[in-house]
Amino acid sequence: MVSAIGILKQPSSQAWVEQALANLDVILLDHSHCERKAAGVALNLLFRYPSNTELVRKLTAIAREELEHFEQVNQILEARGIPLGPLSAPPYGAGLKAQIRPHEPERLLDSLLACGLIEARSHERLGLLAAHLPDPQLASFYRRLMASEARHYGTYWSLARTYFEPTTVAERLETLAIAESELLSALHPEPRIHS
Amino acid sequence: MVSAIGILKQPSSQAWVEQALANLDVILLDHSHCERKAAGVALNLLFRYPSNTELVRKLTAIAREELEHFEQVNQILEARGIPLGPLSAPPYGAGLKAQIRPHEPERLLDSLLACGLIEARSHERLGLLAAHLPDPQLASFYRRLMASEARHYGTYWSLARTYFEPTTVAERLETLAIAESELLSALHPEPRIHS
Repeated sequence: MVSAIGILKQPSSQAWVEQALANLDVILLDHSHCERKAAGVALNLLFRYPSNTELVRKLTAIAREELEHFEQVNQILEARGIPLGPLSAPPYGAGLKAQIRPHEPERLLDSLLACGLIEARSHERLGLLAAHLPDPQLASFYRRLMASEARHYGTYWSLARTYFEPTTVAERLETLAIAESELLSALHPEPRIHS
Repeated sequence: MVSAIGILKQPSSQAWVEQALANLDVILLDHSHCERKAAGVALNLLFRYPSNTELVRKLTAIAREELEHFEQVNQILEARGIPLGPLSAPPYGAGLKAQIRPHEPERLLDSLLACGLIEARSHERLGLLAAHLPDPQLASFYRRLMASEARHYGTYWSLARTYFEPTTVAERLETLAIAESELLSALHPEPRIHS
């Protein structure tokens, strides 16, 4: 398995780090949405494949962990007096979703790898936040979370390997990883975890 | 607050208990689906009302607990050699959903109360399983779970009271409780938690 960082075709730009640090309240709120969405995506996948025992077991664990992180980020928002609220999504998620082929078994493979790539990118970006945040408590929180994101990437990758041949997984991951980096090649004007 | 049992307009029939005990493997599998769906419904509600802090906090806790129960029921299925798999839904869920008025704020009120009623009915039926199951371990598991369902009913009811006037909540709950009991007045031929 290539590491979560190793799989990314392009590292995040310094421009993203600056945008995030300059808009920390929005980034924290978006992070809350990301954890909620990650739980929802894991749950949707186990809804769609109710007979795949291994997938159901591993994605239940991921959904539970994402909900725990969602709760933790919301506590940070509350402590900082940032109200919960909606936030427009950057084009990243929809762009990756557009890469998922509509028919099975390709749909399952692409869904698992797209989720894995989002986790890998989150791992990288939460790591950048951890490295640059001036608040040591918040930095330490992000260090803990970045480790989870790397584990989640590994889980999605290993699920792909459970249901598909190694070369099929490797080739498709390569293609999707290129698409993922292209989606982030221009900085989205609104500050987001995946802007 | 009327208790979870007290709110139900009609108790479950002896015919349901007999059907459930005679088809325990299917009931266990359906129970797994119920926990998964309950987590999904709670998550969908907090997706839909991202600014309602109290709702987000309480439904995150419910979703986490439902996922924990989903995991526990799946472990019981595995121990009994019952494979995971899809199962057709009884008309109950769709029937209750049809009672939810499409426009806000009625949609929120109805959604909370419909969820509360499902939890109240689950509380009653898991309690019946706990009382009648010959396997003491399984009976004890269902006793623990029936307590959670009653708490969840209370949470949905108190969320309704957070956002709506007491008389509005009481009147609508009365109407929906009648509809809920009517949906179960004839036993569904396929054994389900809500057949």
